Amino acid sequence: MRILLADDHPIICVALGEMLGAAFPSTLQGIDTVADSDALLAHLESEAACDLLVLDLFMPGAAGSIPLLERVLAMRPGLRVVTYTGANQPMLAQQALAAGARAFVSKASGPDVALQAVHAVLGGQVFVDPRVDLDAARKHPWHTLTPGERGVIVALASGHHLHGIALDSDRSYKTVTAHKYNALRKLNLDSKTDLKHYLSQIGLGYLLGST
Amino acid sequence: MRILLADDHPIICVALGEMLGAAFPSTLQGIDTVADSDALLAHLESEAACDLLVLDLFMPGAAGSIPLLERVLAMRPGLRVVTYTGANQPMLAQQALAAGARAFVSKASGPDVALQAVHAVLGGQVFVDPRVDLDAARKHPWHTLTPGERGVIVALASGHHLHGIALDSDRSYKTVTAHKYNALRKLNLDSKTDLKHYLSQIGLGYLLGST
Repeated sequence: MRILLADDHPIICVALGEMLGAAFPSTLQGIDTVADSDALLAHLESEAACDLLVLDLFMPGAAGSIPLLERVLAMRPGLRVVTYTGANQPMLAQQALAAGARAFVSKASGPDVALQAVHAVLGGQVFVDPRVDLDAARKHPWHTLTPGERGVIVALASGHHLHGIALDSDRSYKTVTAHKYNALRKLNLDSKTDLKHYLSQIGLGYLLGST
Repeated sequence: MRILLADDHPIICVALGEMLGAAFPSTLQGIDTVADSDALLAHLESEAACDLLVLDLFMPGAAGSIPLLERVLAMRPGLRVVTYTGANQPMLAQQALAAGARAFVSKASGPDVALQAVHAVLGGQVFVDPRVDLDAARKHPWHTLTPGERGVIVALASGHHLHGIALDSDRSYKTVTAHKYNALRKLNLDSKTDLKHYLSQIGLGYLLGST
């Protein structure tokens, strides 16, 4: 078994590497490490064997967060991915699992939780860090927005204005304005909310094309 | 000697603790760890012995970044502080050293660099991670701004408008507008720049009262 560790902080790779070496003394053949998303994608594009990936969702490089995970799994369908990351918003965990990660572990948890996750995933299970409240993600009002409402919120958060959004999406100003206010009401936000900050706080900053 | 490790990712404390234990087998009496800035300040407020602090500048809790470092050193003047943090902007390093940190190490560097920093600081030296270009910080145009210009940029980045800034600072609208455009010219920015994002990118996000 070869494990790939993707994290931009070498101390994390060193610590994980030692833990995994001790945990799988007979089955672990080697550990590879990459420190940014470009190196990760290049590694996966090569023929290098990789049986499990421990993935920090926020590393330097062109891709990050859920889109990075999606690219990884498009290149290596079925790859067992344990996300291990500083962010621990339930919505981010939910999206990671929906995208195909087998485990979501917060770095706020001890390394023993990361090891538990690796054991579980190698055993064919899905693992969610107990500190991450997936139920809260499922109940989040974001999921009650229509696709049109979500689109308007994301466009506003990206700095677009209602007139431009209406033009770009071939809808009337009145329609996109209604989408905006319906969405704000469902999310329990007032119209002065910094939506970019809001999306990033709930773990959906990746929808803006940045992490 | 007792070392305090302040980091919100337990795997970092575990890894540093093991490294330091191996590096100082006879002199290290104990390692304490805290995972947020409130716990850090409470620890320092107690009588607990602490000969060196390895400090992540960005942890959960009320204080962070340079203001946290300043509070730490106000409570324990002369405490040897090695900042060890994910951010590695030269300006942040410069401010940390100016505030009294004895070393600045980026987590993008290997754990050996953190250990080197601890050795250097215990030996009475100041240590700067070789990957951090302090010279770039010294040459940064931010330092060419007058205090008035800096104040206007920080106020704009905090979401204030020129009229309000003029009122609050008892200066004319014309004066604060001139400050704004002189500052933007010196910083080589156009007037549409997201100044909050800009300050955070150059390592000065803490000036906005958030990290």
